[in-house]
Amino acid sequence: MEEISPGLENVYIKYTELTYIDGQKGIMRYRGYDINDLAEKSSFEKVSYLMLYGKFPDDSELKDFKKRINDHLVLDSYLKDILKSLPERSDSLGILQTLLSARASEESNYKYTKENDREKIPEILGSILSMVANIYRAKSGNNIIDPEPGENYAETFLKACFGSVDKDKVKAMDSALILYMDHEIPASTTAALVTASTLSDMYSSLASAIAALRGPLHGGAAEGAYRQFLEIGTPDKVDKWFSENILNGKRRLVGFGHRVYRTYDPRLKTFKKYADILSTTEEQKNILEIAKKLEENGVKAFGSKGIYTNTDFYSGMVFNAIGFPVDMFTTLFGLSRISGILAHITEYVETQERLIRPRAIYRGPGERKYPE
Amino acid sequence: MEEISPGLENVYIKYTELTYIDGQKGIMRYRGYDINDLAEKSSFEKVSYLMLYGKFPDDSELKDFKKRINDHLVLDSYLKDILKSLPERSDSLGILQTLLSARASEESNYKYTKENDREKIPEILGSILSMVANIYRAKSGNNIIDPEPGENYAETFLKACFGSVDKDKVKAMDSALILYMDHEIPASTTAALVTASTLSDMYSSLASAIAALRGPLHGGAAEGAYRQFLEIGTPDKVDKWFSENILNGKRRLVGFGHRVYRTYDPRLKTFKKYADILSTTEEQKNILEIAKKLEENGVKAFGSKGIYTNTDFYSGMVFNAIGFPVDMFTTLFGLSRISGILAHITEYVETQERLIRPRAIYRGPGERKYPE
Repeated sequence: MEEISPGLENVYIKYTELTYIDGQKGIMRYRGYDINDLAEKSSFEKVSYLMLYGKFPDDSELKDFKKRINDHLVLDSYLKDILKSLPERSDSLGILQTLLSARASEESNYKYTKENDREKIPEILGSILSMVANIYRAKSGNNIIDPEPGENYAETFLKACFGSVDKDKVKAMDSALILYMDHEIPASTTAALVTASTLSDMYSSLASAIAALRGPLHGGAAEGAYRQFLEIGTPDKVDKWFSENILNGKRRLVGFGHRVYRTYDPRLKTFKKYADILSTTEEQKNILEIAKKLEENGVKAFGSKGIYTNTDFYSGMVFNAIGFPVDMFTTLFGLSRISGILAHITEYVETQERLIRPRAIYRGPGERKYPE
Repeated sequence: MEEISPGLENVYIKYTELTYIDGQKGIMRYRGYDINDLAEKSSFEKVSYLMLYGKFPDDSELKDFKKRINDHLVLDSYLKDILKSLPERSDSLGILQTLLSARASEESNYKYTKENDREKIPEILGSILSMVANIYRAKSGNNIIDPEPGENYAETFLKACFGSVDKDKVKAMDSALILYMDHEIPASTTAALVTASTLSDMYSSLASAIAALRGPLHGGAAEGAYRQFLEIGTPDKVDKWFSENILNGKRRLVGFGHRVYRTYDPRLKTFKKYADILSTTEEQKNILEIAKKLEENGVKAFGSKGIYTNTDFYSGMVFNAIGFPVDMFTTLFGLSRISGILAHITEYVETQERLIRPRAIYRGPGERKYPE
């Protein structure tokens, strides 16, 4: 008798040379390199290149990769029109999904080949930077612009959003873009792979991923964790809030636990570091203190069950300190994740392409006559 | 040693009471009722209701269901603006994906509950009718309208597209909407389930499905089959074309073979019937004759291998005879499939919800030091 695989939890959908995760020991590596090392010492462009092409770029490859990204920072005017058409109540991630879908609708004559897919990648990275920066600008009441080409993706992005930026924030953004770039096969990457397996175009595959990222069980955790800190209000209220909401099982502690990890999420370390460095205002310090106290409570209560702090617990604070409102957190996660998803798509369709088409087990009624 | 499940071919992702398929015998039923019986004797609204609620509606339930669909035929003005913003080169399915995504961006405060999801369904069926009709209108140079509420979904839709319609075409459209409504767990439904499993909103889940439907290995077959007939040109050229393109393995015969069937696709029968009834012009009769001759060749060559004609071989002819251009075929398929996907989503999240998160098998390099 066949059985279903709930949540595909024990199902292996592909082979990968991209991301290695040891959920017991809390280790995560991209192509063999420790994730925190990469976040500390490398750049978004280099790590994207590493993920996509299997090696770090040499100087001329890096220059060319950056140039091709910079060549695609100007959005087509119809995309700017759509951005202006969307109502104010639209959320930033939904707008990104819409812009990716609109861009996809130009790809109707797209024919999948390895080369066509590869050719698109820097174009996509450039467009997405511009989409996300302009979504932030539009949502915060600023005009839509064509980002200035630059030497560093994180810096180009922050300049496009805010006009000017400081070095610490660029470094934190660059690290965040690296840390969130890939995480093996979460729901969003699964949706992208399913879509790509039909040989649909890459913009559609990414739109499919963003649709999944929107779900509260997936991408929304950084936002959820941060809202939790805001709700608590001050550090002295943490213990009481924790016992009244979490310990008694009324609510789930957001930013804790992960399907893959039984210990601390390895990405946490670097996010926590930048939360410490960048939290300079009274309000930011207050939130940070709440978070740390809440983490202590959480680890004490759940650590023995293998439930520890995950990345999303501290990443919202970093995004906030860089200058972004809560509504942008999941969209920034998406901006980072795009590269990883593109690497998974190319790996899948180039080395193990097969239409993804699972089955269901039928348990309904047998043959019935149509009621005349 | 763990192994991957290529294409998830032997993986069961959920239990279902919706669609039963016997691929050996060529049987397909919705909740126990034979698919051709339903296409012949029922209506889109009744079968949608059956799929969604597990039983046929009584008179007052049907009236209420129709009313709630009719109440949502008017698109918000921002959706009309987006439809006008998209460039002429956009394909109709990409536009549908864009409109669904734009509509999703209003759902940022959506909280999944069984009731919220159920409440949305007639609204979605109404909006999609209007979206698809207006996509057809915009693509064919007509003004965007608010469809007139009506007694029959297929008729309301065709009237919105063409102004007036005849009875045979309404019946053929109604049958097509029923026949394509569900097919267990193809790639598009898989993408929708992955997205819905994160408790994302239903518009996002549908956008995810449409992104997958766009792929040439999935939704594009009706269009591909029809273009094949156009390419051949006249019936006397079929045999030569078949031996020069298909028999020698140069190309794949589109509209033949299906992962699930080892015999004729059961839905074929009704589509073939309407292709016969509706092909009245010289050009339509010519295409029909080409198709029949090509089918003979295909069955002779591949039937012994269990590769037979599938639905998409004849459905394009039916859509064309109703009045639609080739670019609309996959979008019409999508219009029909939405109901089935909604039924799968509600069944999954209501009875067996679990975040869909498969794994990958890592085969990349071991630990490496970052090159300083």
